[in-house]
Amino acid sequence: MNTEQLFENIKRKGSYLCVGLDTDIRKIPRYLLDATDPVFAFNKEIVDATADVAVAYKPNLAFYEMLGVQGWSSLEKTVNYIRYNHPDIFIIADAKRGDIGNTASMYARAFFDHLDFDAVTVAPYMGEDSVKPFLTYLDRWIVLLALTSNKGAFDFQFMEDKATGEKLFEKVLKTSSQWGTTENMMYVVGATKAEELAGIRQIIPNHFLLVPGVGAQGGSLSEVSKYGMNEQCGLLVNSSRAIIYASDGEDFAEKARENALKVAAEMKEILKLNKLI
Amino acid sequence: MNTEQLFENIKRKGSYLCVGLDTDIRKIPRYLLDATDPVFAFNKEIVDATADVAVAYKPNLAFYEMLGVQGWSSLEKTVNYIRYNHPDIFIIADAKRGDIGNTASMYARAFFDHLDFDAVTVAPYMGEDSVKPFLTYLDRWIVLLALTSNKGAFDFQFMEDKATGEKLFEKVLKTSSQWGTTENMMYVVGATKAEELAGIRQIIPNHFLLVPGVGAQGGSLSEVSKYGMNEQCGLLVNSSRAIIYASDGEDFAEKARENALKVAAEMKEILKLNKLI
Repeated sequence: MNTEQLFENIKRKGSYLCVGLDTDIRKIPRYLLDATDPVFAFNKEIVDATADVAVAYKPNLAFYEMLGVQGWSSLEKTVNYIRYNHPDIFIIADAKRGDIGNTASMYARAFFDHLDFDAVTVAPYMGEDSVKPFLTYLDRWIVLLALTSNKGAFDFQFMEDKATGEKLFEKVLKTSSQWGTTENMMYVVGATKAEELAGIRQIIPNHFLLVPGVGAQGGSLSEVSKYGMNEQCGLLVNSSRAIIYASDGEDFAEKARENALKVAAEMKEILKLNKLI
Repeated sequence: MNTEQLFENIKRKGSYLCVGLDTDIRKIPRYLLDATDPVFAFNKEIVDATADVAVAYKPNLAFYEMLGVQGWSSLEKTVNYIRYNHPDIFIIADAKRGDIGNTASMYARAFFDHLDFDAVTVAPYMGEDSVKPFLTYLDRWIVLLALTSNKGAFDFQFMEDKATGEKLFEKVLKTSSQWGTTENMMYVVGATKAEELAGIRQIIPNHFLLVPGVGAQGGSLSEVSKYGMNEQCGLLVNSSRAIIYASDGEDFAEKARENALKVAAEMKEILKLNKLI
């Protein structure tokens, strides 16, 4: 999927919602545990209930790897299910990988060839050759960690460069934006720091940003959109727990849809306000 | 495994060799492709041929994830095989994970509960809460990326802190060494920069270091050992391709053993020179 197609989907649905499929087998409704593949059964219902109001899904790999072979199988089934039944959806592997060139190529194959993800999240610590191998796939993306929304973000990401005064996350944005284009790179920018988005938009005005942390982690959608939105929307705002765990009963998918609709309705207003729809 | 046990194994074997199981299905001897699980068949032979001269094995996850469910199954079988047949071996998941607390806990479960790894490599970019959940397991370790051996290491790891003049990798060492102890944290330090090891040893004199890049990547074992060795050895030096791909014929395991023996013989001399054996 390219930027134009993604923006078309956002306009058509009036939504830039990404639903995080952080499916924890210990948190899904208990009756699903009787299914052959409880995690896939849960994801399937969540996806079918929300696919018309979400533009992206983002399984976090940790939740699948925790279950070993079975988890990896649930992940494959989930990606394939979304791809075939909801082909307009952008699918992000939240894997936060990052390794040297040769190995990065393997990860690219894992996520783009073997699995059919549109994008994979990547950590910047190891630099250019850990990122480049992902950028050789047409219409596939990396989403590079820049500024994360957790407390630990303050340990290193705000360190200031002696030479330029830039913070590490700013240097990551500036340096890495030269490695690819706005057609194969997005960035993770934490929502609990909405005011930073203005500065980030000065460095990378045109890239799409994946904003985690709206919902359970407490970010404000209107703040994030105010500082982060650009002419092609430029935002995918993620919500995981607030949507997928809206209920732990048999109505979990219905309640997930209700919560997704609430977020999407707010997004529609913001898109209108910004004259994008 | 704790430091004392690891050091005991190093002394007994006269070796601090870690064999990287970067098993690429496209590079293993072709006749193995007839096996039910070619990757596991390859690993099993490599392990049996080298377990008396190696103290650690390090499968790189990318090579297994590239094969999806089948790859994850090969990985599980490999870890279990090593654990049961060579219980004195330290097994490292080269996964370079790093995610927020909740998710980091999932990865810890994946590698320490579901799989029976002794250690997992972790990236530092997201800070303390992405590391801490791994440190709650007794006798399990994280190996944190500090200074990597690839070209991209220069993109961010050498950035100097405006406030202290420290380079980013030095700040990572200093800050993170407060999060755990020498009994649950090791560091990845790239071998192509042996001279940096002296400075690193001033910051973390007692931690074990995992040094990649000796062998195919061209680091010098004697240089690395000169600057990096401490009173409990303090080094695990990794070699992957030079050992596991020593031959692509039916003698691959035999040739792997020959190359492992060469490295181990050199290590034995260095351990003697340093009066550790």
